[in-house]
Amino acid sequence: MINAQQLQEIVGEDWVITKREQMESYLVDETAVAIRPKPADNVILVKPASAEEISEILKLANRELTPVFVRGGGTGICGGAVPIRDGIVLSTERLDRIEEVDRANLMVVAQAGVAFGAMLKAVEDAGLFFPPHPGAENAHVGGLVACNAGGVRAVKYGVIRNFVRGLEAVIPTGEILMMGGKLLKNNQGLDLMHLFINSGGTLGVITKVIFRLCPKFISSGTLVISYDNRHEAIDTVPEILQSGITPLAIEYVERNVIEISARRLGMRWPAAKGQAFLIVMLTGDSEDEVYAQGERVSNICEKHQAVDILIAERKEEQADILKIRSEVYSSLKDNVADVLDITVPPASIGVMMDKVDTIAQRFDTTIPTYGHAADGNLHPHLMRDLHERGILRQVKREIYQEAIKLGGVITGEHGLGVVRLPDLDLCPDGKTWELMRGIKRVFDPNNILSPGIGLL
Amino acid sequence: MINAQQLQEIVGEDWVITKREQMESYLVDETAVAIRPKPADNVILVKPASAEEISEILKLANRELTPVFVRGGGTGICGGAVPIRDGIVLSTERLDRIEEVDRANLMVVAQAGVAFGAMLKAVEDAGLFFPPHPGAENAHVGGLVACNAGGVRAVKYGVIRNFVRGLEAVIPTGEILMMGGKLLKNNQGLDLMHLFINSGGTLGVITKVIFRLCPKFISSGTLVISYDNRHEAIDTVPEILQSGITPLAIEYVERNVIEISARRLGMRWPAAKGQAFLIVMLTGDSEDEVYAQGERVSNICEKHQAVDILIAERKEEQADILKIRSEVYSSLKDNVADVLDITVPPASIGVMMDKVDTIAQRFDTTIPTYGHAADGNLHPHLMRDLHERGILRQVKREIYQEAIKLGGVITGEHGLGVVRLPDLDLCPDGKTWELMRGIKRVFDPNNILSPGIGLL
Repeated sequence: MINAQQLQEIVGEDWVITKREQMESYLVDETAVAIRPKPADNVILVKPASAEEISEILKLANRELTPVFVRGGGTGICGGAVPIRDGIVLSTERLDRIEEVDRANLMVVAQAGVAFGAMLKAVEDAGLFFPPHPGAENAHVGGLVACNAGGVRAVKYGVIRNFVRGLEAVIPTGEILMMGGKLLKNNQGLDLMHLFINSGGTLGVITKVIFRLCPKFISSGTLVISYDNRHEAIDTVPEILQSGITPLAIEYVERNVIEISARRLGMRWPAAKGQAFLIVMLTGDSEDEVYAQGERVSNICEKHQAVDILIAERKEEQADILKIRSEVYSSLKDNVADVLDITVPPASIGVMMDKVDTIAQRFDTTIPTYGHAADGNLHPHLMRDLHERGILRQVKREIYQEAIKLGGVITGEHGLGVVRLPDLDLCPDGKTWELMRGIKRVFDPNNILSPGIGLL
Repeated sequence: MINAQQLQEIVGEDWVITKREQMESYLVDETAVAIRPKPADNVILVKPASAEEISEILKLANRELTPVFVRGGGTGICGGAVPIRDGIVLSTERLDRIEEVDRANLMVVAQAGVAFGAMLKAVEDAGLFFPPHPGAENAHVGGLVACNAGGVRAVKYGVIRNFVRGLEAVIPTGEILMMGGKLLKNNQGLDLMHLFINSGGTLGVITKVIFRLCPKFISSGTLVISYDNRHEAIDTVPEILQSGITPLAIEYVERNVIEISARRLGMRWPAAKGQAFLIVMLTGDSEDEVYAQGERVSNICEKHQAVDILIAERKEEQADILKIRSEVYSSLKDNVADVLDITVPPASIGVMMDKVDTIAQRFDTTIPTYGHAADGNLHPHLMRDLHERGILRQVKREIYQEAIKLGGVITGEHGLGVVRLPDLDLCPDGKTWELMRGIKRVFDPNNILSPGIGLL
């Protein structure tokens, strides 16, 4: 195993931490406490400043056969950043420079440790727009790519994957790869860049990201549509999508959940009526266009028994609604034992919610469920009572089985990390896990990088 | 080596062809004659009807160590479907069923051998829309995915990759994999589906594809903007993109090229003035919206010395313009020795065209160049005189070097195939080729599937 002195020789004395009390926040992520993996006892934290230093660390780790766990912003919720074996935590936080916002090419070049919120601000200051919005603005851009983050704005523009144009990464054997570039088309061989997206830090350490940007939309509006009944809300969604309008986002939340988040933020949820809500975000080239879209969406919702429709046009009002929605998980976290991330074909989302209800009734619990209604991506929250009653895993597996029966997967945007590995036996396999492990060996023959994360 | 009888036992007598004269069209693709790879002498053509039959063929080939070359529509232009070693040509043409156009999920499920044009028609008949439009409508959908086809409509919606949601493929060891599904989000481990996209038939035989669809746009318009000068046209493009309007397509063509295509089709190129043209395709939720976009694009073009602007609103007029553009390569093919596919950062496309001009002058030739102006993807055409003078490769390599200096790649949408492999030494490597070859071995340990294509 590597010792601190060897690391100090690479990064300097100030950037190697060995005292446990100085690294507590680096040993956990945002995973709910009940299922959070336990960090190993003997861990050294290292903070390199460049891809070259990371290369030296990985070469050393490969020689000494020492596990290295990559860490970005630590905002993941499936244990993917937790050092579960004795070894090194490699934080990319010092790679924090936005190298360029390139207006002519509509691209941003950012080092892996740049906070997502800082990147958004730089992009906005340049008069441009980065569409995806995974919840946590303290996530790092390298982590967003490593996890292929999703979030609320994937309806119109898709997930992070669609915006990655170039990646620099250091592989476990020490080579620094540059994949892609400021390019919109690239068919030069097998696409290693797309393989890195959602590799969860198991194939290499991402050090730099090139994202595609969009011109700023000229106008936007957010509708909050209230229903008395969850299924009336959900049934509206396919009809909106088929109408020819593609909103930036269509979110589904229920009153009990969204009000907890609003209260925690000291804000007010704007809809007075109804129990179930669709949040529809619209963007367009002009105010008139957004207004016309809003009218058409409203007409569809009224046909489906909407009891109230609020239209937020001012930027601040819209930001408040997104903020309350984004902070739902943070506000529930203390009472939640596990947050699921099932994804089913989008038209099956109503059926899936029925299944979750039935399971909740059978186990005499409540399972708050919200999610990205137009993406088929739902986050049922399993509460702490299930953990205390010793049936958390059983309830989870029943929900997973229903999702898989509908053609779904057990994780749409949060990833496998550590916490989802024990239930992979439920997923149809073929030979896919064996192939994934084979690919892992090509990049990491000694299995030093984030061992035990994602790939079994 | 496998013999015909072994194959007949799997697929039946009618579907194994051994007579050379009955398989001539299966031994070539659309690659220009001057650089087309020579097919091997001893080839058996087999036409299986299902993934299960393909699995049996691959298991047999693995046992007998016989190369198998996968063939879709044969419309590729880099030799990727040509059997360059003795062995089997496996055509997926009998997997020709569109299994479902799923309106509720906005997805189409098609077997690999479905012709692209047939799929487009089925989608349109269901009132939906598939945005990408790679030129050849006789391409097969499996091939579109294997090559990650691009085409003219990638500005607004991206390339084929963005629309693939699920894939079924048979790997060389015989297992049938189902990757993805009718899913908009899927983070369940390393993304093998994205690895298959642009694998060019080297990792497995794609047998079924699930594509995402869009609702039909309500209105569209196509502008043909005429310029006297190529650079005035090209300089307009970034300004259009930054204005907040994202056209479906922005194409660049010159009169000498586009008129050859129009004449061959017995059609008329509608622009009387100018030598250099931008074709801008716009879509929107209403006629008013498209009209407003058209006005804004026109204003930008007029500032950049456009000499004429035609607006086609009728569907037939627009289809004619796309048709003439789509058939440019077919119409030039007889006089072309090689069509390049360089891609540079989009803002560098003007500089890149200057470089091509300079090289053309230096070698005393003309190099017709057209392409997807907003994507940075250019197709310089090297004419037969260069082949006859023995300097084809030299000119090509000089163009490649300039593209690479600008941060570009030697293929944006056509792929490596066979014809681009000898010039890979020009591309920055790191360890990428070695990693690609390692991945290939994971899927195909005996190197039986399309050996010599794409991955060296």
